[in-house]
Amino acid sequence: MGRRNLGPEDIVRYEEDGPKVVLLDQRRLPNDEVELACSSVAELVTAIRELAIRGAPAIGVAAAYGLALAAARGEDVDAAATMLAVARPTAVNLSWALAEMRDDPTPEHARRLHAEEVERCRAMAGHAAELFGPGTRALTHCNAGGLATGGYGSAVGALRAAWERGLLAHVWVDETRPLLQGSRLTAWELEGAGIPHAVIADSAAASLMAAAEVDCVVTGADRIAANGDTANKIGTYSLAVLAAHHDIPFYVVAPTSTIDLATPTGAEIPIEERSGAELTTRFAARNPAFDVTPASLITAVVTEHGVRQPVAL
Amino acid sequence: MGRRNLGPEDIVRYEEDGPKVVLLDQRRLPNDEVELACSSVAELVTAIRELAIRGAPAIGVAAAYGLALAAARGEDVDAAATMLAVARPTAVNLSWALAEMRDDPTPEHARRLHAEEVERCRAMAGHAAELFGPGTRALTHCNAGGLATGGYGSAVGALRAAWERGLLAHVWVDETRPLLQGSRLTAWELEGAGIPHAVIADSAAASLMAAAEVDCVVTGADRIAANGDTANKIGTYSLAVLAAHHDIPFYVVAPTSTIDLATPTGAEIPIEERSGAELTTRFAARNPAFDVTPASLITAVVTEHGVRQPVAL
Repeated sequence: MGRRNLGPEDIVRYEEDGPKVVLLDQRRLPNDEVELACSSVAELVTAIRELAIRGAPAIGVAAAYGLALAAARGEDVDAAATMLAVARPTAVNLSWALAEMRDDPTPEHARRLHAEEVERCRAMAGHAAELFGPGTRALTHCNAGGLATGGYGSAVGALRAAWERGLLAHVWVDETRPLLQGSRLTAWELEGAGIPHAVIADSAAASLMAAAEVDCVVTGADRIAANGDTANKIGTYSLAVLAAHHDIPFYVVAPTSTIDLATPTGAEIPIEERSGAELTTRFAARNPAFDVTPASLITAVVTEHGVRQPVAL
Repeated sequence: MGRRNLGPEDIVRYEEDGPKVVLLDQRRLPNDEVELACSSVAELVTAIRELAIRGAPAIGVAAAYGLALAAARGEDVDAAATMLAVARPTAVNLSWALAEMRDDPTPEHARRLHAEEVERCRAMAGHAAELFGPGTRALTHCNAGGLATGGYGSAVGALRAAWERGLLAHVWVDETRPLLQGSRLTAWELEGAGIPHAVIADSAAASLMAAAEVDCVVTGADRIAANGDTANKIGTYSLAVLAAHHDIPFYVVAPTSTIDLATPTGAEIPIEERSGAELTTRFAARNPAFDVTPASLITAVVTEHGVRQPVAL
């Protein structure tokens, strides 16, 4: 059973005693709830690269704590920021958090950013829930839960809010190959929240849509370009095409820290290619970790400020 | 390295000494090439149910050998046919092979059906290859190879024929969750044939299509209804929708033994639901093994008799 009351500090926190950044090792979930302590920026960069902590807003928060750690250890804060910024290329929140922290790299500041990120999740979840009709059967991909945002969640936050309002009947959880963030992390969070759910193979979403068993698709985002094109976990674009084909609304729920006005369109978003060994160690493989969904396929983007609909203007 | 010259008798055969039906245990591939001997129809039914042998034409051939086994052992041939017919519900080839065998349940007859099935594969592969232009980068799903047909393959047969004619540049292999027939079986067969390939997550197909890295999709079929609607491995329908969205041709390559004129449309094809434990043993899951692609999304169906295009009339 997933923890019912996983707090933001259980996902990632700063401890002056050390000092260190402590995070719940998401690679070990759902079987083991084990924490990982990073005593240097180099250790934190490795933890982010190897996905001990993942999810665009969560790695932004972790990077903020990382800068505080660098400052406390007397390391070069600019060099630390550069290392953290390139730990993963697709999510823009890393750069956003580092820019916010640069002038005041203190634990207090990082904690404030963290708390604000969770507050944004609660606000956007409230807005998103207004898009749900009674008895909604939603489908989600990857993990845009509390684990991915440092608390509460973006897409999963929307599901929590809809559930609390009695509007959510069921959640289809894409297992999300190759690293199974859906069947390991999202199912665990939904279980903890008591929300009815079932894991499916990613490729089963289309036939559930054809059978009218999916009322909407809800995902998070790793980076939203200025024109609304959205990078998210590989498979998101596939779902958006399928949702459009079946006339099912496709919602992106993400904090404004995910919006990158400096990137005009999805074509300019760098897509991380990860090792083929995540798929097979026996044969050649190609393993892009993200894809880009054009704004034209997104019914609405929901941020802490409200619902933007239509996305493409 | 997959065997370069895997013969039909290496995939499934009848041995008078026993007597028994011997098959290559596909659950153990690609790591181990281990044979499984079935000395009774009950053992063969279990082998089919548990996917030691799978693929619509291949289980039809195995069932034919099973009836010969029942007759040789003095078992009730009708009762054996009933057991075999319901081993798996979606593929029609089981019923087809059993109907063919009923009046003459001998090993010689079963061997003749097996050889004819492989010949049909070679014929349809030749027809299908004519649909390929030079430098084609094809995408395939699941395993419609020699392992699935008792030799040579349907969709993979088409890829073999196109490769021999110098028309095929590369194959994208959907890993095909949950049982990974793509990354375990198809990649192994393509390696054996020396055809360049790369495994991808099923959910990555859409972004490769958007990047213009896929020229056509080629799959097999488990049952084709009278109107051309086609049941095949879960995820096939998803690919057909995605291919249509990207204006990429979608080809089904299957022997006429897969066509079921008694089933008017895809809506009447029974879809096997398999255990959720194939996806996760920790959480609730839903695991349909097949989906139905409407004829309207299929560019052409290729059988041993030639290319049928358009499919929906």
